[in-house]
Amino acid sequence: MSEILTIEQAIERLRAADDILLLCHKNPDGDTLGSAGALYWALRQLGKRAAVLCSDPIPDRYAYMELGAYAEDFEPGYIVAVDVAGLQLFGEATVGYGERADLCIDHHPSNSGYAKALLLDGEAAATAEFIYGLLLEMGVEITPCIASCLYTGVATDTGCFKFANTTPKTHAVAAKLMELGADYQMLNTLLFESKSRPRLAIEKRSLENLRYYYGGKCAVVALSREEIEESGADSTDLEGITAIPRMIEGVKVGITVRQQPTGSYKVSVRTSRDVDACAIAARLGGGGHKQAAGCEIIGGMKYAVDALLAETAKELGVEPEQSADEGAALC
Amino acid sequence: MSEILTIEQAIERLRAADDILLLCHKNPDGDTLGSAGALYWALRQLGKRAAVLCSDPIPDRYAYMELGAYAEDFEPGYIVAVDVAGLQLFGEATVGYGERADLCIDHHPSNSGYAKALLLDGEAAATAEFIYGLLLEMGVEITPCIASCLYTGVATDTGCFKFANTTPKTHAVAAKLMELGADYQMLNTLLFESKSRPRLAIEKRSLENLRYYYGGKCAVVALSREEIEESGADSTDLEGITAIPRMIEGVKVGITVRQQPTGSYKVSVRTSRDVDACAIAARLGGGGHKQAAGCEIIGGMKYAVDALLAETAKELGVEPEQSADEGAALC
Repeated sequence: MSEILTIEQAIERLRAADDILLLCHKNPDGDTLGSAGALYWALRQLGKRAAVLCSDPIPDRYAYMELGAYAEDFEPGYIVAVDVAGLQLFGEATVGYGERADLCIDHHPSNSGYAKALLLDGEAAATAEFIYGLLLEMGVEITPCIASCLYTGVATDTGCFKFANTTPKTHAVAAKLMELGADYQMLNTLLFESKSRPRLAIEKRSLENLRYYYGGKCAVVALSREEIEESGADSTDLEGITAIPRMIEGVKVGITVRQQPTGSYKVSVRTSRDVDACAIAARLGGGGHKQAAGCEIIGGMKYAVDALLAETAKELGVEPEQSADEGAALC
Repeated sequence: MSEILTIEQAIERLRAADDILLLCHKNPDGDTLGSAGALYWALRQLGKRAAVLCSDPIPDRYAYMELGAYAEDFEPGYIVAVDVAGLQLFGEATVGYGERADLCIDHHPSNSGYAKALLLDGEAAATAEFIYGLLLEMGVEITPCIASCLYTGVATDTGCFKFANTTPKTHAVAAKLMELGADYQMLNTLLFESKSRPRLAIEKRSLENLRYYYGGKCAVVALSREEIEESGADSTDLEGITAIPRMIEGVKVGITVRQQPTGSYKVSVRTSRDVDACAIAARLGGGGHKQAAGCEIIGGMKYAVDALLAETAKELGVEPEQSADEGAALC
């Protein structure tokens, strides 16, 4: 297990280090990149060499962070994982570095303790929220670029201050970052008011395929491999649509079923506060949280949806329906 | 024109008044209702009689504000309009009271000055943001109910802290309201993560009808009366979909055309920062802002779309296409 550090101890080690390699998790999001970006620019300000590395390409939309490209000849002297809760989240290209991480800075209470040392704030809405305080303690000047990186992390991990993890402190940090020059108008447009064409295409298909069951208390979106491939949607696009069925007024259980390239069916279950998503997923071999869970089902699409409808009926306390009844479509 | 008041003067007048009628604007949104709700509960706390009145029914989703129902026998002693920028925004049922308004509390710089006195903060992102400071000055205890009303106003007028009007102060006020007991988790789910079935239905139809022109720089959604009626969408649902075409990556001009019950075509034009929406709408008899404008076109749907495509081509500096070319659909 990791040695647990205080902020002061972590600062001491960062100050003593050089040639610092910052590692992000695979499928990089705004928080792992924004946190690494802010640290990168802070370390550069302190006169250190640093680089950012991720096993997946950094999406174009984050180009404004101007993250120092990792070069093959960069010899890491100190390795820092940022917002990476466990080794399995590194991806093949970086897990070797992850196993040697000197320090992990994270906000996931579930952090597995794989790094030699750990700086954790499980109360922070985002790792970037926490790193803001760290940089202040370090005496780093929060430039507009650093502020934009940190704002990206805070805003994306909270769904633009909408998710339940948002706290008064999150808003207070956002206010400070805006005052320090975070380009929040550009960032909000880029991060929250823009969708790719494949994302729109898979949204369209999802709405066409959406069916209501149990008097509108359950909504199911089922997507075949062919439909997913036709849309061009990637995993991020697909992740985005899992929120759609639950969002509909009156729906307590929102289910998304996606056929995988292997032929199995990946299931996402989202529920309102009074229904246990994990109970539904767990009985089908999966797991997760009370309001968001998942599982994988082998068999046909009809088999998968019928199994989900049967488990949903138990949680709703109603008589089971079958997908063969077809459900009610959107008009 | 209105007498312009300081906060202290406005507080003096509210303290001296009783039987206070609070007026909201028609098609009430979270800010006019949340502001009126917060004032209602503050005035009640000061031992005064008060009532809230709006020319349209208050949507069910705002029931948690528990706004004092206006009764026919309520004799207003002092009339306060909240978040109403001009007389035309009252609606038939309340404009008579609006014309007699003693005080207007607002954040719209365009306020017409129809009330006897005006308390205005044109810098505030929402009237509710401004009223938070007013209530503090009045020495009112911000109860969880008042905090929820104010949070509703601040969050809805900024699209959950996403729109360009959001300031550091907006976030600071949100942080305070959360600390004071605003039920922000319930409110965020209710206000930002829930869509009506008709809204989903019209979204589906919009995505099906969406066409790209000019190499993807322009996206058009055209909706016939029949399609709108089939979906059951109301004006709020329709307003929501005008953001969709502009949101697509690469799209600089997003156009929505809705056939009206009268047969004419209501047009919404949304543009990226480098294209003038108002120029497009103005040449077709409409107007608006640089990034969001509108107009009404008489004729057929094809005529309307072709006219819009021609004006869009001028702004984009490209050769005009016609809707008969059909555009490219989402896959």
